[in-house]
Amino acid sequence: MSYTTIIEELRDDAVIRDNAAIASRLAEETAPDVVEVLNTCDIGQTAQLLELMPVERAVEVLDQPAFDHAAELLSILPGHTAARLLAGMSADRAADALREIDPGVRAELLTGLDGETRAALERLLAYPEGCVGAMMTTEFVSVPSNWTVAEVLRHVRAVENTRETVYAVFVVDPLRQTLVHAVPLRRVISADPRASILSAVPKRRLIKTSALAPREEAVRLIAKYDLLAVPVVDSRNHLIGIVTVDDVIDTMVKRDTEQVHRMGGMEALDEHYMDIGFLRMIRKRAGWLSVLFLSEMLTASAMQSFEGELEKAIVLTLFIPLIMSSGGNSGSQASSLLIRALALHEVRLGDWWKVALRELPAGLTLGSILGVIGMVRIVTWQMLGFYDYGPHWQLVALTIGATLVGIVTFGSMTGSMLPFVLKRLGFDPATASAPFVATLVDVTGLVIYFSIALVILHGTLL
Amino acid sequence: MSYTTIIEELRDDAVIRDNAAIASRLAEETAPDVVEVLNTCDIGQTAQLLELMPVERAVEVLDQPAFDHAAELLSILPGHTAARLLAGMSADRAADALREIDPGVRAELLTGLDGETRAALERLLAYPEGCVGAMMTTEFVSVPSNWTVAEVLRHVRAVENTRETVYAVFVVDPLRQTLVHAVPLRRVISADPRASILSAVPKRRLIKTSALAPREEAVRLIAKYDLLAVPVVDSRNHLIGIVTVDDVIDTMVKRDTEQVHRMGGMEALDEHYMDIGFLRMIRKRAGWLSVLFLSEMLTASAMQSFEGELEKAIVLTLFIPLIMSSGGNSGSQASSLLIRALALHEVRLGDWWKVALRELPAGLTLGSILGVIGMVRIVTWQMLGFYDYGPHWQLVALTIGATLVGIVTFGSMTGSMLPFVLKRLGFDPATASAPFVATLVDVTGLVIYFSIALVILHGTLL
Repeated sequence: MSYTTIIEELRDDAVIRDNAAIASRLAEETAPDVVEVLNTCDIGQTAQLLELMPVERAVEVLDQPAFDHAAELLSILPGHTAARLLAGMSADRAADALREIDPGVRAELLTGLDGETRAALERLLAYPEGCVGAMMTTEFVSVPSNWTVAEVLRHVRAVENTRETVYAVFVVDPLRQTLVHAVPLRRVISADPRASILSAVPKRRLIKTSALAPREEAVRLIAKYDLLAVPVVDSRNHLIGIVTVDDVIDTMVKRDTEQVHRMGGMEALDEHYMDIGFLRMIRKRAGWLSVLFLSEMLTASAMQSFEGELEKAIVLTLFIPLIMSSGGNSGSQASSLLIRALALHEVRLGDWWKVALRELPAGLTLGSILGVIGMVRIVTWQMLGFYDYGPHWQLVALTIGATLVGIVTFGSMTGSMLPFVLKRLGFDPATASAPFVATLVDVTGLVIYFSIALVILHGTLL
Repeated sequence: MSYTTIIEELRDDAVIRDNAAIASRLAEETAPDVVEVLNTCDIGQTAQLLELMPVERAVEVLDQPAFDHAAELLSILPGHTAARLLAGMSADRAADALREIDPGVRAELLTGLDGETRAALERLLAYPEGCVGAMMTTEFVSVPSNWTVAEVLRHVRAVENTRETVYAVFVVDPLRQTLVHAVPLRRVISADPRASILSAVPKRRLIKTSALAPREEAVRLIAKYDLLAVPVVDSRNHLIGIVTVDDVIDTMVKRDTEQVHRMGGMEALDEHYMDIGFLRMIRKRAGWLSVLFLSEMLTASAMQSFEGELEKAIVLTLFIPLIMSSGGNSGSQASSLLIRALALHEVRLGDWWKVALRELPAGLTLGSILGVIGMVRIVTWQMLGFYDYGPHWQLVALTIGATLVGIVTFGSMTGSMLPFVLKRLGFDPATASAPFVATLVDVTGLVIYFSIALVILHGTLL
C-alpha cells in the first residue's frame, strides 16, 4: 500500500494517538514504507513506535538511508538499546548515522559495542566524507583462492544473512590476503562444485577502486560496468570493503539534488524541503543571493558611468532588460550543456578549446537569430506606429541587432567556459548556475551595449 | 586500463589505421572500455572492427547502452550478420536499437529472426517510449510455485547464461500463470533444498509494476526498495518482463541530463555534446531562446509605457538590472528547490498551498535582506560622495529597498508555484528553468518597480 494511503488511513483513524495501534498497522508494511510514515512523526513518537517493534524490524528501519531520524534516535535511546541496534545495522549505515552524532555521544556509543563491531565502525569513520571509504561497507563475502566451488557455496550459505550482498564473491590470496578477483554468484552456482573457485573467475579484468578515491569513482564504475558491487582496496591491494549498487543509487539521487540546487544558485539544502527549519533554509538561500546581489551592483556602477549617454538617449534604456536577459539565457544554456557533459565525462578538462571552437559559431548564430528578431520588432513597431523610436530609429535597430550578436556570443562563451574554470579550480562545475552566469554576463553586457551604441549612434543620438 | 590511455596509446601507434592491430589490442579490454573507443570511431571503422571480433564479443559490445552506433550498425550490416547479432543481444537492448531504426529496415531485420525472438521483440516494440514496457527485458527466471528449492536451483543453473539476471527468481501460479512472488537467489541457495520454493518467499509484500506505468515508476521502486529487478505484469497479473537495476541507473543518468538541459532553458540534447551536429544543436537551443526573447520583449513594452517616468527620473534606470536580476535569482532558487522536491516525492501536487505558505515568509525575509543591502549601498555612496543620487536620495533608497522586498517575494512565489502548474498541466516541472522564471518575473518586476516609485516619489521626482 502506498505511503499516501497509509498516512491518510492513519489520519482518518480515531486511534491516531494510540502508538500500539499504529505499530501493529505498520507491522504489515515494508521497511521503506514504514520509514516514509516515521519521517512524518516527531522524534518522540518515532522512538516509541520503534520500541514497540521487534528488534530486527527496528534495525531494518534504521538501515534505510531514507530514514531521517537515525542519528538523533541513536543519541536519545538508552545506551544498551542503541548499542544493540547499532550492532545489528549494516556497517555503512551505522557509520553514516554515527558521523552525524556529536563526537562525545559517538565515543560513548562506540564503547558500548563489542570489540569487532567497534573496530570496523571506527575504521569506516576514519574516512573523510565524500570518499569511497565513507560509503563502503565491510560486510562482504571473501574466500581464499585455494577453495573449491563447493566450499565457497557452503561459506556463502553460512554467512548469507550477515552480508550486505552475496552476489559478488571476492577471491583473495590465502597468504598475502590481497584481492585476486571477483566472481559473480551466478558463475559460482553454475560452476563444477569440485573445481577450484578460480575456474569460475570471469575472463574480463577485475574492476576495483581505492578507499580514498572520490565517491564519484564508485558511482562511475558501477554504472559503467553494470556491477552489483565494486571492491575497495587499500594501498597494498588488501580488500577492505565493498560499495553496493543500492548505495550508488542513493548517492546518485543525493548528488543530483545537490546539482539542481547549485544550478538554482543556492547551497544544497541537504534536507527535505518540507522538513528543513525556516532559518536554516533562509541561511542556505541568503548567502548566494547576497553574493549575486553584491556582484550585480556592478551593473549600477556601469550604468552610472554611462549616465551621460542614458540622458541623451532614453530610448536605449528601453532595451536594457531584453538585451541583458538574452545574454543570461544563452549563457545558462551553454553552462547547463557543459556541466552535464563534464559530469558524464563526455568532455574532459583539456577539451576546453574544442568546446570554445563550437560555442563561438553557435553563439554567433544564435545571436544573429535574436538580432534579426529584435530588429524586425523595432522596424515593425516604428512602421505600424505602435511606438516612435525617434528620427534615428534605423540606427537604434542596428544597435540592438549588433548588441544581441555580441552579447549572445559573449554569454555562450562565458557559460561554456565557466564550468571548466570551476572544475579546474576544484569547485563543482554545477556552481556555474544560471544566476551566476547571468550576473557575470550582465555587467559586461551593459558595457558591450553602450560601446556598440557609441560607435553606431555617434554624431546622431550620442 | 582507462579509456584515455587506450585512446592515447592507439593515437601514438603508427598502426592506428590497421584495424586488425586495433582489434587485437581491444580484445584485452572490457566491453564498456571497447565501447568508449568505438564511440570515437566513425561508423565504417566500427563495423570493420566489430567484424574482426568473435560474435559473442560483438554482441557484448552491442549490449552496452553507452554504445552510440548500435542502431546504425544493425541497419548497414548484411542481413544475416545483423540477425545473428540481434538474436544474441539482450531483448531490451535489441528493442532499444530497433526502435531507432527506420520502420522499413526494422521490419526486414525482424523477418530474419527466429519466430520466438521476433515475437518477443515485437511485443517489446509495441510499448510506447517512456513506459516501463519499453525498458523491460523478457529474459527473466520464472518457476512454478509447486517446485522444490532444489528444482529451482537446477533450473537457475541451466538457464543462467541466457538470462539478464538470475538474482531474483519469480514464482508463478502453475495453473493460472499469474505472478505469486519474487525470491532473491540468496534466499534460494540458503533454503532447505527439499522444501517447496514457497518456503523461501520473503515475508514482505511483493513489489511489482505494470508495463504501461511510466518508467519513473520502475526507477522509484528499485531505488526505494533496493531491488535488483522489479517484475512487470500485465492487467491480468501475468509476468511479462523485468526491469533490472542497471537499466534503472542508465535511465537515471539520462533523465538527469534531460533535467539539467531543461533547467538551462533548452530542449534536452539527447546526444553527446561533442557528437551532435552543429545545426541540430542550434535547433535545440534556438527554439527556447527565441521564445524567451519574444516573451522578454514585453519588458520593452513595459518600459515604453513608463517612458514619462524614466525621463523625469533617470536615476531610476540605474537600478533596473540590479532589481530584475534579484527577482530572477530568487525565482530560480525557489524553482530549483521545488523541481527537486517534486521529483523526489517530498511534496505532492496537493501540497502547493503549504509550499506557498513557506515561500511567502521566505521571500519577504530574503527580500528584506537584499533591500537593506541595497539601501546601505545608496546611503554609503551618497554619504561618501561616490555618486549623487539627487536631492531626494533618501526617497530613492526607500524605493529600491521596498521594490526589492516586493520583487524577491514575487520571484520566490512565482518560482515555487510554476513547477506545480507545469506538473498539473502534464509538463516536466524542470521546464520551470531559471530563464523561464526570470522572464516571467522581469516584466512584472518592472511594473512593481515603477508602481512603488510612483507612490514613494510622487510629488518629488515623479
